[in-house]
Amino acid sequence: MALTAVLRLPARALLRPWALLRGVALGRTEAAAGIRNGARRFGSQHVLVEPAAAAGVAVMKLRNPPVNSLSLELLTELVISLEKLENDKAFRGVILTSDCPNVFSSGLDLRELCGRNPARYAEFWKAVQEMWLRFYLSNLVLVAAINGACPAGGCLLSLTCDYRVLADNPKYLMGLNETLLGIVAPFWFKDSIMNTIGHRATEQALQLGSLLPPAEALRVGMVDQVVPEDQLLSTTLSVMAKWLAVPDHARQLTKSMIRQATADHLLKQRDADIQNFVSFISKDAIQKSLQTYLEKLKQKKG
Amino acid sequence: MALTAVLRLPARALLRPWALLRGVALGRTEAAAGIRNGARRFGSQHVLVEPAAAAGVAVMKLRNPPVNSLSLELLTELVISLEKLENDKAFRGVILTSDCPNVFSSGLDLRELCGRNPARYAEFWKAVQEMWLRFYLSNLVLVAAINGACPAGGCLLSLTCDYRVLADNPKYLMGLNETLLGIVAPFWFKDSIMNTIGHRATEQALQLGSLLPPAEALRVGMVDQVVPEDQLLSTTLSVMAKWLAVPDHARQLTKSMIRQATADHLLKQRDADIQNFVSFISKDAIQKSLQTYLEKLKQKKG
Amino acid sequence: MALTAVLRLPARALLRPWALLRGVALGRTEAAAGIRNGARRFGSQHVLVEPAAAAGVAVMKLRNPPVNSLSLELLTELVISLEKLENDKAFRGVILTSDCPNVFSSGLDLRELCGRNPARYAEFWKAVQEMWLRFYLSNLVLVAAINGACPAGGCLLSLTCDYRVLADNPKYLMGLNETLLGIVAPFWFKDSIMNTIGHRATEQALQLGSLLPPAEALRVGMVDQVVPEDQLLSTTLSVMAKWLAVPDHARQLTKSMIRQATADHLLKQRDADIQNFVSFISKDAIQKSLQTYLEKLKQKKG
Repeated sequence: MALTAVLRLPARALLRPWALLRGVALGRTEAAAGIRNGARRFGSQHVLVEPAAAAGVAVMKLRNPPVNSLSLELLTELVISLEKLENDKAFRGVILTSDCPNVFSSGLDLRELCGRNPARYAEFWKAVQEMWLRFYLSNLVLVAAINGACPAGGCLLSLTCDYRVLADNPKYLMGLNETLLGIVAPFWFKDSIMNTIGHRATEQALQLGSLLPPAEALRVGMVDQVVPEDQLLSTTLSVMAKWLAVPDHARQLTKSMIRQATADHLLKQRDADIQNFVSFISKDAIQKSLQTYLEKLKQKKG
Repeated sequence: MALTAVLRLPARALLRPWALLRGVALGRTEAAAGIRNGARRFGSQHVLVEPAAAAGVAVMKLRNPPVNSLSLELLTELVISLEKLENDKAFRGVILTSDCPNVFSSGLDLRELCGRNPARYAEFWKAVQEMWLRFYLSNLVLVAAINGACPAGGCLLSLTCDYRVLADNPKYLMGLNETLLGIVAPFWFKDSIMNTIGHRATEQALQLGSLLPPAEALRVGMVDQVVPEDQLLSTTLSVMAKWLAVPDHARQLTKSMIRQATADHLLKQRDADIQNFVSFISKDAIQKSLQTYLEKLKQKKG
Repeated sequence: MALTAVLRLPARALLRPWALLRGVALGRTEAAAGIRNGARRFGSQHVLVEPAAAAGVAVMKLRNPPVNSLSLELLTELVISLEKLENDKAFRGVILTSDCPNVFSSGLDLRELCGRNPARYAEFWKAVQEMWLRFYLSNLVLVAAINGACPAGGCLLSLTCDYRVLADNPKYLMGLNETLLGIVAPFWFKDSIMNTIGHRATEQALQLGSLLPPAEALRVGMVDQVVPEDQLLSTTLSVMAKWLAVPDHARQLTKSMIRQATADHLLKQRDADIQNFVSFISKDAIQKSLQTYLEKLKQKKG
């Protein structure tokens, strides 16, 4: 394809999102790896919560194989797990990471976007909003240990955190690539990324649906640090220690002062946003496009 | 002048704007170079529109010698040319560049700002607003191939584009230098540059009327790339290919989501903004200052 | 302390604020160094105002030993001194610096925050607001020559300036470190720093209460230049010359256009902000925390 020759991003950067979502499209539901040994505190089917090696810190691992697609179930479990940690005085910080190899999260589960009825679409979208609102405004310190590809809704989830550390692997691309799938990230996805990388970089990243390799993600500020993969957890723990050195109350009030207006932007029009989503995703053109895509993936796999 | 010794910008950077505008002030109206050979699609007196060497892409060249000053006529033709392209399904992207050597555009035509009546000032200002609104919100991909000096209104025009590539020539200074002429860039000029280089850099660039050489323009983010002059067009085409790889509909909705609020800022007070301009430019002090300046230029030239 | 091993900031960066404020807490009131020789134009007990070696420029020196803590008296004198300079046609620019060694300003005087009655807290807070509003919107060019540590309110004062030059000394840490003292910077402190270093850097700096060494302060944009200490004044004068090359009227209107909205944010809720402060600072928990801290410092000193 001649076009790729003139692209600044390598061809695989454009092709990657489809690849990442392949497993999802095919509906693989590999059996969970079973209960881990060790001191799991809270658990649910798709979210493991374990105490970290540091006081007051929990590690929350997404476990929805093969690619941690954000299904209604996973979104709900994420919110419940976070709420439990917020209500447990023993915890002040959470490290958010993936239990699936090579993928942090592939983003919204495409199966939730295809062939469902409006009520289900609305329920699903409300859960996406809820996840974003709860994580973005959490009074806990959230640090993302990004140990795999992080496109679309996976990127959004990481953007809710207070700090992002990305493992240095050229396959771990990151960004809000919705346009490349022919869909549009809603305004609060845009607000999230704009608060992180600024207005101009957002204009480019969001229109182009850029999936950035680690060095580029660091350069634009989408992540705060890039480290060798085997140092990811230790780095994240170091970062967490720095954040936990700050008195909770002052830090929480400061966080809220900075973030509340952005959250209010959605809160003030939450129902309208749901209606917009349901209306958009129900369009024949969008459904056909997504269906065609899913069929192709199944054939490839088949 | 001792002062220049302590300035970070070279002296010529401060002197350049006057030099650039000299031709305009003298009212030179060199005959247009005649119809170009090749497949010109749309044409007008001051705007050449040619298909580029890539499918779906047009090259729009400003041709108002000697310095592409933005007269009422040129502004009107720019808007009409863009509208034609937007209505032609054959085109998805536009490369905006200059047909005049060494100057992209010197900015607003000073002759439109001097010795006219209020109705004419109002008509002119409405045309400046219209140009900005149409280009800033265009559903086409706009890439600026900046092949010459780019001060004031010329810089504003480039800031409406989705991407800016600047030829690496130390004479090609770029910025909103209005303050150095004793005038004030209106709030939507400020919004444009702030969305591009951020709040703090805008505070400096706009107050100082900074005209930046290529390396500096790149550093603050006023342009996205600086390339050797002979690679300007090829680079621009590469960039365009990347933007055209994105489905139009998703990209357009995303662009609108990001830019509409800034455009609304003007749209909501468009008439008041015209009145402000007419009132400001009609002031005796401003008129005297501009007249004196034009006289000086004529004498220098004479 | 094991914790410090994992912190990115050196331990002294976290410990510094307490150290800086020690003198204040102990209520040292070393005699002022006496009237300086030379052509002092305006003077008050804690603010020296001298003409600089450049036409139209005054040097304003904070002199509230040992650490230039911002007492009600100093804040009031700062505002009066600035107003005098604004009303004196001879001056177009002010260089703001410290007359106390190693400290630009340690920030708000903690003695103003402890054991006073609500009316006094309200009076003090109004003076802090007034300082910020007057300096942030001053029609003079303000350049900060930061010749010492610059935490909390000292940092806020420097952020009101048009340009900041910091002497390159690793002890000259800078930042809004309120959270480390268990208190919360109000929204207009947040607005000030966000307009300077952007949204994302503010999220980190303000929550962590980061005190940055010169290289880091420059990297995030908290200062515009870092220079060897013996070049601080000459650099500041060079910067000032560049700003004074711009016609005052155009520069002032431009500054106002950029900054007024941020000032209005406070102006529209000034009384509520005072009430919030009085209510917050009067809390038993906050008072106990501050009192305990002051006692400790006295014991250490004693």
